[in-house]
Amino acid sequence: MPRTKRGSAPSIRDVAAVANVSVPTMSRYLKDPSRVSEKKRVAIAAAIEKLNYRPNPIARALALDMSESIAVMSADTRLYGRTQTFYGIERKAQEIGYPTTIYVLDSRGGDWMLGSVRSCLDRSPAGVILIDYDRLTDSVVSHIPATMPMVIIGGPRHEDRAQIQLCEYDSAYTMTKHLLALDHATVHYVSVPSDVDAREDGWRMALSDAHVPAPAPIATSWDAEEAVAIGRQLGEDESVTAIFAGNDEIAMGVMRGLALAGKRVPDDVIVAGFDDHTLSRVWNPPLTTIRQHFDRAGEHAVSMLKQQIDDVVNNRPRGEAWTMFDQIAGELVERESTGTVFL
Amino acid sequence: MPRTKRGSAPSIRDVAAVANVSVPTMSRYLKDPSRVSEKKRVAIAAAIEKLNYRPNPIARALALDMSESIAVMSADTRLYGRTQTFYGIERKAQEIGYPTTIYVLDSRGGDWMLGSVRSCLDRSPAGVILIDYDRLTDSVVSHIPATMPMVIIGGPRHEDRAQIQLCEYDSAYTMTKHLLALDHATVHYVSVPSDVDAREDGWRMALSDAHVPAPAPIATSWDAEEAVAIGRQLGEDESVTAIFAGNDEIAMGVMRGLALAGKRVPDDVIVAGFDDHTLSRVWNPPLTTIRQHFDRAGEHAVSMLKQQIDDVVNNRPRGEAWTMFDQIAGELVERESTGTVFL
Repeated sequence: MPRTKRGSAPSIRDVAAVANVSVPTMSRYLKDPSRVSEKKRVAIAAAIEKLNYRPNPIARALALDMSESIAVMSADTRLYGRTQTFYGIERKAQEIGYPTTIYVLDSRGGDWMLGSVRSCLDRSPAGVILIDYDRLTDSVVSHIPATMPMVIIGGPRHEDRAQIQLCEYDSAYTMTKHLLALDHATVHYVSVPSDVDAREDGWRMALSDAHVPAPAPIATSWDAEEAVAIGRQLGEDESVTAIFAGNDEIAMGVMRGLALAGKRVPDDVIVAGFDDHTLSRVWNPPLTTIRQHFDRAGEHAVSMLKQQIDDVVNNRPRGEAWTMFDQIAGELVERESTGTVFL
Repeated sequence: MPRTKRGSAPSIRDVAAVANVSVPTMSRYLKDPSRVSEKKRVAIAAAIEKLNYRPNPIARALALDMSESIAVMSADTRLYGRTQTFYGIERKAQEIGYPTTIYVLDSRGGDWMLGSVRSCLDRSPAGVILIDYDRLTDSVVSHIPATMPMVIIGGPRHEDRAQIQLCEYDSAYTMTKHLLALDHATVHYVSVPSDVDAREDGWRMALSDAHVPAPAPIATSWDAEEAVAIGRQLGEDESVTAIFAGNDEIAMGVMRGLALAGKRVPDDVIVAGFDDHTLSRVWNPPLTTIRQHFDRAGEHAVSMLKQQIDDVVNNRPRGEAWTMFDQIAGELVERESTGTVFL
């Protein structure tokens, strides 16, 4: 196995040799990792880490001082959790002197989404933060070489990347248990659009642990108006006394629908949401919810990314920040929509 | 007066001579226009336009293909109008192949804000879009040289720049007139935080035209919770029967406060907002408001900016897109918070 001389930067040939792949394969990987097999991808990532290899584009960009920008990849930036996370990223990045660049991931996926990813990587950012509240990770992460500093917020766990999760499963479990304890036979769930909804999983597990049968979860879009129709339907079903919505905006739409069906909140039906949207506390009645610390997650992601960038800039071996995994817990916030009155 | 040869690019000396200023003054202007006197600033801007001058940094960036990014300057990106405008910008910029970079203007102003502006200009973006819903224009525009493609959205009119306004004065006038016509003695106004609030001006003029005395406008912050206290106070005043809020989130807070004071909307008090926030239609009762086409303004700004960038890229004289002024009208949307029932 060839070794590089102590102190000299490893070349693409060195990495290819250690990974036991050809140089053209290495080139393909650096352009788009998804173009090589899963097995080779893993071998190359390991070799990159072992040799502390960084390819020319980043070195050039650093030399030109043109890459001092943190790239944020996110789907629809209008959604509440994203604007809050992005705010935390901006604030922290500004504090440490990095401007932020947003690349909007096209939710149509496929080539549309890859276009945004390529456009981002072509400009050699100092690092990438992926906001993964839409579970787009699997299709995006595989296109980002292991040489690029990166932090993922949300999404399923990627062991070989730095990541921050928001404990949605635990929070949903806690909320469901709390609603059951308010003496309800079961809790109906209106889900956020997501292929793998950790909130739904937490709700289901809490019901299962309490030996309560789970009613079929009701799917809806991000559009709160659609939730109005769902709320009206639930309001016409006398067996429905407790509703847990996948986010606050959906909970608000559901409450409007309940009102249209002649039901009072919390007297006839209790409702809880998720996120602690700015407007949740002024809703009529104010909404019980899970406070998610989106801005804190954003700030923390920048700190983790900064450590990775520093490793690159100072030509140090990759530290623990490259695969760090942190969780930021949510908090149950009780308000009048679940009948609790506070002094 | 010196003239440049036909076809050769004008130099900084040529511009200085036409503007009748020294070359060091020109250098200062290009670094930060606010560092030269108002009189010289106007003369230099005119000379730049006359000679179609562009300084080296942009030319170099274009040659290196490093400036293909549209920089968006905005204060607090979490606020509704901004996320919507930014969404329109992103969508259109993506369509024409430009990534967008956001530079958050620090609302503490002064050196903090100038830091963001400099950080942006140092990276030679292809063009700048300034979202000016906070009336920060006056302090920002003077720091951006006339050589930089730029579009301002909102804010007071700058004759020498491209700008899009949202007709807030007209919309507020229309709304106030509409509320008076619903047989109310007067309309109380709860204002958005702004030094020069066109919405407040429109409200005041409508009352004046109807020979109705204007009650003192009530100031509040962007925090909807503060509006709850205001709503409660207004609810305890029997003379208050119609309230117009500077934006929808404030209107929602006011409605919650009215409920706490035992007042029903629309039976006892009617309430209208401004912006058509996504949640306005699912509020209980749904909120009468002015629909603002933020996303359309964002898209249109990118189109105007693209024309300016094309002038630079193709070394053409500056076309009309550099000083174009467009207005995008709002629409009154009637919902149940003002007592109107629709089929």
